[in-house]
Amino acid sequence: MLSPPVNRLITEFGRLPGIGQRTAQRLAFHVLKTPPDEALALADAIREVKETVGLCETCFNLSVGPECRICQDARRDAELICVVEEAGDVIPIERTNEFRGRYHVLGGALSPIDGVDPEDLHITELVGRVEGNGVREVVVATNATTTGEATALYLADLLRERAPRVTVTRLASGLPVGSDLEYADEVTLGRAFRARTQL
Amino acid sequence: MLSPPVNRLITEFGRLPGIGQRTAQRLAFHVLKTPPDEALALADAIREVKETVGLCETCFNLSVGPECRICQDARRDAELICVVEEAGDVIPIERTNEFRGRYHVLGGALSPIDGVDPEDLHITELVGRVEGNGVREVVVATNATTTGEATALYLADLLRERAPRVTVTRLASGLPVGSDLEYADEVTLGRAFRARTQL
Repeated sequence: MLSPPVNRLITEFGRLPGIGQRTAQRLAFHVLKTPPDEALALADAIREVKETVGLCETCFNLSVGPECRICQDARRDAELICVVEEAGDVIPIERTNEFRGRYHVLGGALSPIDGVDPEDLHITELVGRVEGNGVREVVVATNATTTGEATALYLADLLRERAPRVTVTRLASGLPVGSDLEYADEVTLGRAFRARTQL
Repeated sequence: MLSPPVNRLITEFGRLPGIGQRTAQRLAFHVLKTPPDEALALADAIREVKETVGLCETCFNLSVGPECRICQDARRDAELICVVEEAGDVIPIERTNEFRGRYHVLGGALSPIDGVDPEDLHITELVGRVEGNGVREVVVATNATTTGEATALYLADLLRERAPRVTVTRLASGLPVGSDLEYADEVTLGRAFRARTQL
């Protein structure tokens, strides 16, 4: 009943993560209703981003040139590397202003069930960076999920073997700041207990 | 911290309805990660839809040519017009297979608080269609919301004056099929009582 171009747009919106059939339809109708300028601005932004933004050759973060801004910045501590799953994870860490080292974006987390093996991630390049330069510490900041934890343990083992003098650390688990004990799940609460600090 | 093209893409996604800052960021990072073919397919679909799909000159439904498929279809009852707020509302009505007439898309609902007045909607064109041809009945299928109801009452008054021989009807209010009485809000339940039918 809808014309092929409209159906095609609904299909393409539906491919985006977290966008179901109904939302895709709503977005398509919004695009249809919106002035051409505004709708084409989205099309152009997609095109521009795919044409201009690539990955940093060193850390695989997003980058407009061959090397990203953080890797280019000489004031960032090159002996400290924070490993994240995705480029999007760099943003919240940067916002904390707690970390002044460099990054390494893996491009995902190990998940044998989804067919993600070590060779699918930028792990070889991480080991190369850690072995080569005078890296002091690797902070593994993968997600606190099953796959993120598995990836962290895998990396810790690998780095212990390949670069034994480098310290490998993991972000702390515990209660989110401002949260109520009552609403904490028992795994988080258990970890918060184990990792309790002296006042 | 993000490059301008990435920020631009986040902004453009954020303009879509129901897409907040966080979702816009997630979608942008998905586009960045996805193969160029797939990402550009969305950009092309947006462009194509804006270049090829316009509004039907008669009913303001979406249309690839000057007249939409429903208005072109001689088997559809031209004496029966269903008035909807948006082109997207045609789809669920067509799916019911209950309606074999034509449509008229208003392009919104009256909402003085948002600055939507009768002249902002395709109301003049509706009156023209109803006055001119041998229209028998106008089914007002605007949403069951405050603005939808206000629009329905406005249209009923206007048509009673301008085309007194035409019957104006409204979709029934009542309990959704398959719903529990227990969970019905009192306004819906009240209407379902008033509109009760004999068994």
